Amino acid sequence: MTAQVTETEAPDTVRVDLGERSYDILIGRGLLAEAGERLKALLPGSRAAIITDENLAKTHLEALQASLDEAGVKHVTFKVPAGESTKRFSMFERLCDDVLAAKLERGDAVVALGGGVVGDLAGFVAASVRRGMNFIQVPTSLLAQVDSSVGGKTGINSRHGKNLIGAFHQPRLVLADTALLDTLSPREFRAGYAEVAKYGLIDDADFFAWLEENHEGIFSGGAEREHAVATSCRAKARIVAEDEFETGARALLNLGHTFGHALEAAVDYNGERLVHGEGVAIGMRLAHDFSVSLGLCAEDDARRVEAHLQKVGLPTHMSDIPGQLPPTETLLDIIAQDKKVTKGALTFILTRGIGRSFVERNVERESVLAFLEKEMN
Amino acid sequence: MTAQVTETEAPDTVRVDLGERSYDILIGRGLLAEAGERLKALLPGSRAAIITDENLAKTHLEALQASLDEAGVKHVTFKVPAGESTKRFSMFERLCDDVLAAKLERGDAVVALGGGVVGDLAGFVAASVRRGMNFIQVPTSLLAQVDSSVGGKTGINSRHGKNLIGAFHQPRLVLADTALLDTLSPREFRAGYAEVAKYGLIDDADFFAWLEENHEGIFSGGAEREHAVATSCRAKARIVAEDEFETGARALLNLGHTFGHALEAAVDYNGERLVHGEGVAIGMRLAHDFSVSLGLCAEDDARRVEAHLQKVGLPTHMSDIPGQLPPTETLLDIIAQDKKVTKGALTFILTRGIGRSFVERNVERESVLAFLEKEMN
Repeated sequence: MTAQVTETEAPDTVRVDLGERSYDILIGRGLLAEAGERLKALLPGSRAAIITDENLAKTHLEALQASLDEAGVKHVTFKVPAGESTKRFSMFERLCDDVLAAKLERGDAVVALGGGVVGDLAGFVAASVRRGMNFIQVPTSLLAQVDSSVGGKTGINSRHGKNLIGAFHQPRLVLADTALLDTLSPREFRAGYAEVAKYGLIDDADFFAWLEENHEGIFSGGAEREHAVATSCRAKARIVAEDEFETGARALLNLGHTFGHALEAAVDYNGERLVHGEGVAIGMRLAHDFSVSLGLCAEDDARRVEAHLQKVGLPTHMSDIPGQLPPTETLLDIIAQDKKVTKGALTFILTRGIGRSFVERNVERESVLAFLEKEMN
Repeated sequence: MTAQVTETEAPDTVRVDLGERSYDILIGRGLLAEAGERLKALLPGSRAAIITDENLAKTHLEALQASLDEAGVKHVTFKVPAGESTKRFSMFERLCDDVLAAKLERGDAVVALGGGVVGDLAGFVAASVRRGMNFIQVPTSLLAQVDSSVGGKTGINSRHGKNLIGAFHQPRLVLADTALLDTLSPREFRAGYAEVAKYGLIDDADFFAWLEENHEGIFSGGAEREHAVATSCRAKARIVAEDEFETGARALLNLGHTFGHALEAAVDYNGERLVHGEGVAIGMRLAHDFSVSLGLCAEDDARRVEAHLQKVGLPTHMSDIPGQLPPTETLLDIIAQDKKVTKGALTFILTRGIGRSFVERNVERESVLAFLEKEMN
């Protein structure tokens, strides 16, 4: 059974290779219109629970519903408030209840139409209702298309930190319609771009150099955008396939995230002060300069990273965050409570240069403290 | 690294074979005293969060804590109220928060000391905190030792039904100390015995015949008890290994459960009227007589099942449940909303005789209705 493809060219396809849990990420302009046919082809006879936020409900929801209607896929829609604070227990409980009240079964699908917040929350609902329903991601932000919709991490926040409660639950399909990104605010697009740049910095120096040359086409919506999304997804898919449950190599994806998460927590996840991708941008610059301070990375590489992130308009210093930050000791405590901690030792993603990141599991608290003190003064 | 075994004979060991997620079930008298050494041997350097209920906190908790102390395993304890109503969202949330507040990490262990309620709830917490911590089961009821502690099903109840929200999360170790069963009430022991008998009825007619002869030793705490627990665990382990995520053969474990769950829901999970194992006992007798009515099973087999369950003091008829039951139509609606429904067809475990159960996915609503009408009049 193949999906009936109309209107668009054949999309780029990235296969995430996880044995029985393998799935495709499709990338292309206009894919939203095909959602119904593709869902029907993948899960014949299944119904869908669309989970989306109130902003997206005004923009892309109607197109998704129309596509499902056209394909004869029955559906219900549940809306949540937009924003990070939606990733909380009470929303998780409410949505689980909603999906059960709609009498959806294990073989039916939860469809996440949204950015990382909606995808993480809806994914945890899909993982938990009846101990696991089918899950389909329709990511609407650049961040979600290149990062959070791929790899099966789902979850909600706790008052002890971000994403501390959740599940590994792989989607059955990811539909990344790059046309949806046309409506993102410049700030949100930039924030997603930080994760794109990350894939170059982790292990693909050529891709980072290509980004330095071609970033304008990505922002303006040229063919460079699909190439950047597909390259990012391919990089993530490869790392996830190596290490589905984050016991090793997958930690590389956290380049910039240890510092970044701590900064997000330090501003109480106030998105007006700092959004996730901005935290990652600052964190990646910090990771490079921290690596320079440890004698691991050449100064020039750190300056190239800083220059490129600044060129696209991303923040790179803690002082770029409006308002007061807590003292360095507090930041360190937040880092130590981060979920990537193993047996008390601090784990950081460090680098030997652009495209040469590695996992270091024995970073001394004192050296981080000294580095942060220097950064903040 | 081997555990230091003292005081007891080598326990019976049942291996649950699930590739990377394989684990041992140890069965024997006095195993609780070895919990600390065994945890240390399996997960060196890990800390433990014990989750137990307020009743068990008065009986077996101290012995477990002492064993952990002796082995130098650091631990914290979280208590929940006893009873099925503890398997709810607010408890799940509170425990996730407690475990995070204690700063436990992914490599640490959640230890469930309790029956099915504690195991299911603690297991879902272990599955969800940091997207999956180590999980160890110390089942204290017969039901938990032979059924719920084995196989990785965890979860909580929803107002739409039992166990509708949860995860598949395998334990790393199950310690079934059969001496703990000495303190169970006769009613609770009997309820667990229903699940023991189930393994005979599913596919082991010889075991059922052995139970008919030897059930007294199981109740009185003779060596028959370890044999019955080990045989049950081995049966369950084999079925779980075939079908970890319940897409096929595992459904056989639901023999008696479709009717049983519906009856539990019909009394609003009021444990004074009906506990789970009693529902299963009635359900198994109903499944046999329903199979007789469909011309699948010999009448004699149904009578043997009824006679044996009655002999140990278990209920076998809906009329054995004190108080009023809802009308048959309502029971059917509850059955149809059960999580084992697939695409609207009713799934039942039927049987061609003792030890010859099978999954039937296309049971007509009308034939169930007619059977229930006859049963209730």
